Amino acid sequence: MHKNKAYLNCLQREQAQELWYQKLTECGFFKNLPRETILVGDARGRVTASSIYAKQSVPHYNGAAMDGIAVWASDTFGAQENEPKRLTLLTEEQTFSSDCCYVVDTGDLMPLGTNAVVMVEDVYFVDGGAEIIAAVAPWQHVRIIGEDIVANELVLPEHHVISPVDIAALLAAGVEEIEVLSKPKVAVIPTGDEIVATCKELKPGVILDVNSHMLSAAVAEWGGEPVRMNIVKDNIHGIKRAIFASLQVNDMVIVNAGTSAGREDYTSTVLSELGEVLVHGVAIKPGKPVILAICQGKPVIGLPGYPVSAMLTAELFIRNVLVARQKLPPYEEDKIEAALVKQIASTLGVEEYVRVSVGNVQGKMVAAPLSRGAGLISSLTKAQGIIRVGRGNLGLAAGTVLPVNLLHKAKPANTILAVGSHDLALELLGVFLRRRRENVYLSCANVGSMGGIMAIANNEAHIAGIHLLDEETGQYNKAQMEKYLPNKNLHLVHFAMRQQGLMVLPNNPKEIEGLKDLTRPEITYINRQRGSGTRMLLDYELKKSTIHSSQIRGYEKEVGTHMAVAASVIAGAADTGLGVQAAAHALGLDFIPVSQEQYDLILNFSTDDEHMNIIIDILQSPEFRYEVESLGGYDLRDAGKLIHFSKEN
Amino acid sequence: MHKNKAYLNCLQREQAQELWYQKLTECGFFKNLPRETILVGDARGRVTASSIYAKQSVPHYNGAAMDGIAVWASDTFGAQENEPKRLTLLTEEQTFSSDCCYVVDTGDLMPLGTNAVVMVEDVYFVDGGAEIIAAVAPWQHVRIIGEDIVANELVLPEHHVISPVDIAALLAAGVEEIEVLSKPKVAVIPTGDEIVATCKELKPGVILDVNSHMLSAAVAEWGGEPVRMNIVKDNIHGIKRAIFASLQVNDMVIVNAGTSAGREDYTSTVLSELGEVLVHGVAIKPGKPVILAICQGKPVIGLPGYPVSAMLTAELFIRNVLVARQKLPPYEEDKIEAALVKQIASTLGVEEYVRVSVGNVQGKMVAAPLSRGAGLISSLTKAQGIIRVGRGNLGLAAGTVLPVNLLHKAKPANTILAVGSHDLALELLGVFLRRRRENVYLSCANVGSMGGIMAIANNEAHIAGIHLLDEETGQYNKAQMEKYLPNKNLHLVHFAMRQQGLMVLPNNPKEIEGLKDLTRPEITYINRQRGSGTRMLLDYELKKSTIHSSQIRGYEKEVGTHMAVAASVIAGAADTGLGVQAAAHALGLDFIPVSQEQYDLILNFSTDDEHMNIIIDILQSPEFRYEVESLGGYDLRDAGKLIHFSKEN
Repeated sequence: MHKNKAYLNCLQREQAQELWYQKLTECGFFKNLPRETILVGDARGRVTASSIYAKQSVPHYNGAAMDGIAVWASDTFGAQENEPKRLTLLTEEQTFSSDCCYVVDTGDLMPLGTNAVVMVEDVYFVDGGAEIIAAVAPWQHVRIIGEDIVANELVLPEHHVISPVDIAALLAAGVEEIEVLSKPKVAVIPTGDEIVATCKELKPGVILDVNSHMLSAAVAEWGGEPVRMNIVKDNIHGIKRAIFASLQVNDMVIVNAGTSAGREDYTSTVLSELGEVLVHGVAIKPGKPVILAICQGKPVIGLPGYPVSAMLTAELFIRNVLVARQKLPPYEEDKIEAALVKQIASTLGVEEYVRVSVGNVQGKMVAAPLSRGAGLISSLTKAQGIIRVGRGNLGLAAGTVLPVNLLHKAKPANTILAVGSHDLALELLGVFLRRRRENVYLSCANVGSMGGIMAIANNEAHIAGIHLLDEETGQYNKAQMEKYLPNKNLHLVHFAMRQQGLMVLPNNPKEIEGLKDLTRPEITYINRQRGSGTRMLLDYELKKSTIHSSQIRGYEKEVGTHMAVAASVIAGAADTGLGVQAAAHALGLDFIPVSQEQYDLILNFSTDDEHMNIIIDILQSPEFRYEVESLGGYDLRDAGKLIHFSKEN
Repeated sequence: MHKNKAYLNCLQREQAQELWYQKLTECGFFKNLPRETILVGDARGRVTASSIYAKQSVPHYNGAAMDGIAVWASDTFGAQENEPKRLTLLTEEQTFSSDCCYVVDTGDLMPLGTNAVVMVEDVYFVDGGAEIIAAVAPWQHVRIIGEDIVANELVLPEHHVISPVDIAALLAAGVEEIEVLSKPKVAVIPTGDEIVATCKELKPGVILDVNSHMLSAAVAEWGGEPVRMNIVKDNIHGIKRAIFASLQVNDMVIVNAGTSAGREDYTSTVLSELGEVLVHGVAIKPGKPVILAICQGKPVIGLPGYPVSAMLTAELFIRNVLVARQKLPPYEEDKIEAALVKQIASTLGVEEYVRVSVGNVQGKMVAAPLSRGAGLISSLTKAQGIIRVGRGNLGLAAGTVLPVNLLHKAKPANTILAVGSHDLALELLGVFLRRRRENVYLSCANVGSMGGIMAIANNEAHIAGIHLLDEETGQYNKAQMEKYLPNKNLHLVHFAMRQQGLMVLPNNPKEIEGLKDLTRPEITYINRQRGSGTRMLLDYELKKSTIHSSQIRGYEKEVGTHMAVAASVIAGAADTGLGVQAAAHALGLDFIPVSQEQYDLILNFSTDDEHMNIIIDILQSPEFRYEVESLGGYDLRDAGKLIHFSKEN
């Protein structure tokens, strides 16, 4: 209910966009645009400010189009191979008269009085004359003045995007300088007390200004000229000064607020003092707090602080107006249809945008929603597409087939979807794959081992990384695969033995040496969720050591990832937890090895797909083994070995 | 037969491309590429030289994701709206203990010992404490360290094209500088005695260097860094010096030969002295003389001199290798299917490339071949697509449906095809159309009035400009339209009264005052072809003046365009000819008005096509009338008037 209320006073996206266009049109944003004169040679990609007409004809003279002799065409009529006709050869200085000719090379000016060229292959030079064995029509083999472009003819229309061939045409037509539309100048102002400009200034509680770089690059991508300003502190006067100054020398101003609640109020207050706030809040998610204003006749946009929200609202409210102002063709994303691999919950009355991975699994195009936090930059880089969940939906069921807008020329046909237990070494597999097949992209989604098995069952993934221990047998993976994935063509291939261990603060202040220490009353443990491979391993090892879970303080506190365990230790919320070495390493924690576990890959490829063989080949290669083992905590001696092959009945 | 022989020793295009790739691969053109370190903020569109891993986790600390109070999650269990739980508020300096909490804002570091945030909406502050009305799970409303990106995790793979969101991810992951592939440096060397660098140096017999600008822009378009060199004269030593010098500092060298026959031999000779010539001549048209060589381990390409040939061979032999070297996705043109509007003759054994206009006429996608001269720059700018006529074809019949590669994001759906008698004022109509509909493009093909009528009959054009006089009645256009285009939904709309007259040399040296002077024995006339509107007008006017064609010297000499008439006069091949004022004006000839003719438009649009009404509206507008009449020789007082409407039975 909270969420619904929050959107009550918001405009709908279409209303906001329409109002925005209308007001920008009214204030002249799309008209009487500034222009500049540039050299034609520098004009690639620029847009003509007005129609451009030829200053000279092309060709600018009547020229021979062949090597041969220039003649008066009717003098040649009747000439044939067996009945040659003889013409008198003249020198350049001699005036033309009937039955005469001149020697010409391709490109030479046609001598006065001639109107055709007999090509050299049809001419026999005899003393003082030329015998020709073929007749020519008037103007045959002659490039007539203006036959390509006539002086005063239109060469390029107004608002045309100049390509390399246009440059050739302009120059040929005698146009060496042209007027083009100036690129719109867009100021990008990062604001916020908690924002710093460089990594050096980073400490807990402050965050790096990445948005101003991202938004400036986006402005450039959309044809504008970004002007990235210094960070402005959260202070009404400072923000007002910065916006006012930017308005004087730019065509548009973007203010990027901090992420704190209520922070955008500064921007809103300042903008209503400087001009008119048209929109404050749009019923979209993420991106609700966007502000659209017109100040001093220019657009000013307040974008939310979270990167995903900032990018989405920039795409919705900046991209198209920037492109339209430049008279560039409207931005169009490629669209495909794909089936959702898991359900998406959504809020009624709010239009939601969800980034997805897209791939073709066993002939079916599938879209896997990425984590939806507005602050998750990784969802921006991992996304290959974006789907829109309409206002009228409470969500979309798994399996729903819906349109996906593809991002940055994504090629779903070349995407390999890896879904399951996440592992840094799996990403290295992606790197090696690309070295073999330049356009292949491995997309990794972290949903745990059982999630991976389910994805394979539904043909929603090519690869599932799993580490599932069978407590009965102490065996890994094969039993679960047989149980949950019967009747499918699948390969189970060994990937690595992976070290699991206890993560502790640097220098191990509580002197934890192994699982036995977990029973010490002063030690607090942080656990992984039921069903995770790591939890299964813990339970198995505790059983072997005859430790009962009730002896461990914190056993019942569960978190969902290796990193959450590590984070708990760093935060002092727990003294230790079980996880992979890489997580400990990433956060600078110490690591006490407990047990090796077996991490394998289920491969789900069509028989005609070459990628499976490449993957197995990579797993078995010494280079791959070397690189993965260098990460620490991995043993790849049997990588690539086929453990199990299941067949469709 | 000549043509066939010329291609006998040529490689086929696919063979040449394959050999070229293979040799470039062997000489390492695609490997161990030069790289450079740049700031991440400047990296948009660049390509990563190697995989990039996170230097820090994102977030880099456990931070509050909401404004509220930081708590130990299990202390909140059981709290409800009607059963609030009370916690003690601590200040920053106080150490955490059970049932305590701290006030936090979004983004604040989580105090040591806390692992969740209760959002402010669920908190009632009472003196010294906080009453909470909702429980939270561990790490709820907390951004856990590394939940977005984990230190050491892959951020971008090797050979990835960097987008704005990638810039955000890199910076957030602590990566402020990266190694990217250097852009390949490509020298472009124009050669030829007849080539000049500027319009000022232009005179008959020399031509402007437009290719080096076009090719440099193309190199830039394909991601390379062009280095345009000065023009080199046709001199073996000079050319060799220029190529040798360019090889030292560039990754690729393009030599653009002059257009004269045999000129490319210089390049070929030099290249075989400097390295190995792999290919000299490919069985394609245009573009046959292309030379592919490897000198000092680097590719050197000799491109033919005609602009259309140069561009085509650059697209075939430079674009893809440049793109592949940069690890950019292979260049792909959009393809559509369209029906040829007229037949294309072709040479057996030669692969021909023909540029076309493309448009949707009455629901049928049609492709209209443009003039095919290799020297016709205008065919490059007017083309919206390119079709390939295979080696096995002697040509393609009109109506053949075949694939068309679309050029520069052409949008056939927005193209209006005007086919018929050409007129400068028609191009102005295109300019005005664009002002009303930004993405509409008017493509004009000059095939004469009867050609236009035939194109309309076959639904191959939207507009036909015609000026056809009925000798019986002295009436224009309507009779012909009724005769040749029965049973079709068409509008005949008046465009302009157009002045036809006699073109003569400046200052009219032979003192020609009108048609009566054509009978003077010392006057030579140049005629237009039978069936052209201008020829019909002449014959009609001669009849009125009771002049017989036999009285006119040159009456039987025909050329095909207004410009060819003007060119004949300039060249001294004739003293005068009938044509429109604009042609005379373009070439600086004097003009003696003879008669006004009626130029009308047949409009062939689907009923749901809005363009017809826009066109009529433009024709009737005072702005359009003003601009067209300013061209001279036009009267638009009745423009836009509906003359005739024919209906399908």
